[in-house]
Amino acid sequence: ASLNGLSKPPPVVHYHLNNVTTTADPVGNQETVLILTPLARFYQGYWNNLLALSYPHSLIALGFIIPKTKEGNAATVALQAAIATTQQGPEGKRFASVTILRQDFDPPISSQDESERHKKDNQKARRAAMSRARNSLLFTTLGPSTSWVLWLDADIIETPPTLIQDLAFHDKPVLVPNCFQRFTNEENKPDTRPYDYNSWQDSQVAADMARDMGPEEIIFEGYADIATYRTLMAMTADRSESRNQQAIIPLDGVGGTALLVKAEVHRDGAMFPPFPFYHLIETEGFAKMARRLGWGCFGLPNYFVYHYNE
Amino acid sequence: ASLNGLSKPPPVVHYHLNNVTTTADPVGNQETVLILTPLARFYQGYWNNLLALSYPHSLIALGFIIPKTKEGNAATVALQAAIATTQQGPEGKRFASVTILRQDFDPPISSQDESERHKKDNQKARRAAMSRARNSLLFTTLGPSTSWVLWLDADIIETPPTLIQDLAFHDKPVLVPNCFQRFTNEENKPDTRPYDYNSWQDSQVAADMARDMGPEEIIFEGYADIATYRTLMAMTADRSESRNQQAIIPLDGVGGTALLVKAEVHRDGAMFPPFPFYHLIETEGFAKMARRLGWGCFGLPNYFVYHYNE
Ligand SMILES: Nc1nc2c(ncn2[C@@H]2O[C@H](COP(=O)(O)OP(=O)(O)O)[C@@H](O)[C@H]2O)c(=O)[nH]1
Ligand SMILES: Nc1nc2c(ncn2[C@@H]2O[C@H](COP(=O)(O)OP(=O)(O)O)[C@@H](O)[C@H]2O)c(=O)[nH]1
Ligand SMILES: [Mn+2]
Ligand SMILES: [Mn+2]
Repeated sequence: ASLNGLSKPPPVVHYHLNNVTTTADPVGNQETVLILTPLARFYQGYWNNLLALSYPHSLIALGFIIPKTKEGNAATVALQAAIATTQQGPEGKRFASVTILRQDFDPPISSQDESERHKKDNQKARRAAMSRARNSLLFTTLGPSTSWVLWLDADIIETPPTLIQDLAFHDKPVLVPNCFQRFTNEENKPDTRPYDYNSWQDSQVAADMARDMGPEEIIFEGYADIATYRTLMAMTADRSESRNQQAIIPLDGVGGTALLVKAEVHRDGAMFPPFPFYHLIETEGFAKMARRLGWGCFGLPNYFVYHYNE
Repeated sequence: ASLNGLSKPPPVVHYHLNNVTTTADPVGNQETVLILTPLARFYQGYWNNLLALSYPHSLIALGFIIPKTKEGNAATVALQAAIATTQQGPEGKRFASVTILRQDFDPPISSQDESERHKKDNQKARRAAMSRARNSLLFTTLGPSTSWVLWLDADIIETPPTLIQDLAFHDKPVLVPNCFQRFTNEENKPDTRPYDYNSWQDSQVAADMARDMGPEEIIFEGYADIATYRTLMAMTADRSESRNQQAIIPLDGVGGTALLVKAEVHRDGAMFPPFPFYHLIETEGFAKMARRLGWGCFGLPNYFVYHYNE
């Protein structure tokens, strides 16, 4: 570090963590948002939706983690092209910074097909690997001045442009919208259906199941052969035009396709357990960990984001 | 970001995590070390020892977290004065960067006296608060290019100058030296005694105790009324001149007064549980978490660092 032959002392940075606010008016209070995306495939729909977010891009930092596979290499090339276009484009659309991490461990299953991914036998290894990817991304990109972390999967291709403001408005430690999928129904009409079953309220049945389980066992949600009788947020959605989009419910488990977290929840230590934690793993284990740390988790049953339909 | 009227696109940074090595020859491989210190009081002896470390300072980043108390304010002032002197001094002695965080929550007990700190009734709240402080520091300072994290308490006032090289030499995921304290014995002679009892190998008695405990109970080490029969590293030290300083043993719990951790262990998700985790908390809970993630913990019974004697 030398400038005109004079040596410049290295930086000393001083942060007061309690000056980093998280409020219902994040734009007014100039709160920074870190959007974190584990990315195995690049979808232009994801990028277009991200670009359309009305939260000031100058307050948004982006972080990606991409597997070291052939598919990951292709995704990296496509992502970098999209980033280059945006970051050299109009100043108002540019994001504050972008970090791309390439994973240092192999993904557990080679196929990224939806049917293969969702096989129950593959779930434990797959979700453990997803947890490690999320943790690597989180631990290396979260800074002392980050107010909010928005987890956003790479295949979320449609959200309201006001997503960040709408979620932050509720001022909750952990908040998840309802993740649906568009499809064409039997009558050849456009329709929607639930996609993410990881946001739920616990049941006595599931609690009893957990009590009788061995320490390494995990309860996976959304499989016919394990009836948990949990209340799934996906099933309680009101899809009518007149619905109350601000309806909010407490949750015990959360999904991570889109998930807003106050940075202080993560700073307290809340991460994504790659091992069974109270018989839960990944984002569902994260919700349990956040609650163990004293933070509440909530969901918006009638506020929708949409997952890509393969 | 504008330069000569031309707007400069914001930074895009690309990291390959598996190019971040952790090896037995960290200096040769130019590996970066992040030294993290929770600091309630400033000791000049700590700073002098830090300055004397022979690991290239240009590869060392420092991070501190300091409570928002009157004592914490005084410690901040003293620390900043020490930093200013060093960072404006000879280039070879300067550290790559310094981050100071001020805590956003209150410490649970107001007194920092050793006797008050070590009362068993105060341990759960105190060590939960220490865990939160360590997590805040870790989550906000760890970067994608950090190779090693050295946890070093603010009251460790004497280590070999080759501490980092000596620990890294063993190339272990988690490695703890033996923390002792100098004192004057009854014969008025300089002597040493064990200080940190948190590095241990588990026993059947402790495992049985854990099995019979309620979920919120914690086994604290080093209290006469809980005989755990664990093998305490503090008690197995060879203090002779001819001792083998490289002797190494596997551990189930580790203390944090001085502790070298491969950054990828933290990136995988290993943090300091502020809640009972397998009936363990803070650094002992961290060791259990690292092991749940598949990483081994080790100790050097005959390699000493020294804690301040109040
Ligand atoms: N870094 C990384 N990201 C992955 C990996 N597998 C999937 N992803 C991404 O993680 C997110 C969730 O994975 P996905 O397969 O869509 O899960 P599902 O929709 O719940 O079946 C998506 O953004 C994927 O692109 C992986 O092995 N490594
Ligand atoms: N940030 C922060 N650091 C603390 C707090 N209490 C103690 N420390 C520091 O944390 C480390 C361990 O605490 P200490 O009281 O020495 O623990 P002991 O030696 O195990 O009794 C030392 O470096 C202290 O200066 C706290 O409330 N906040
Ligand atoms: Mn998906
Ligand atoms: Mn101490």
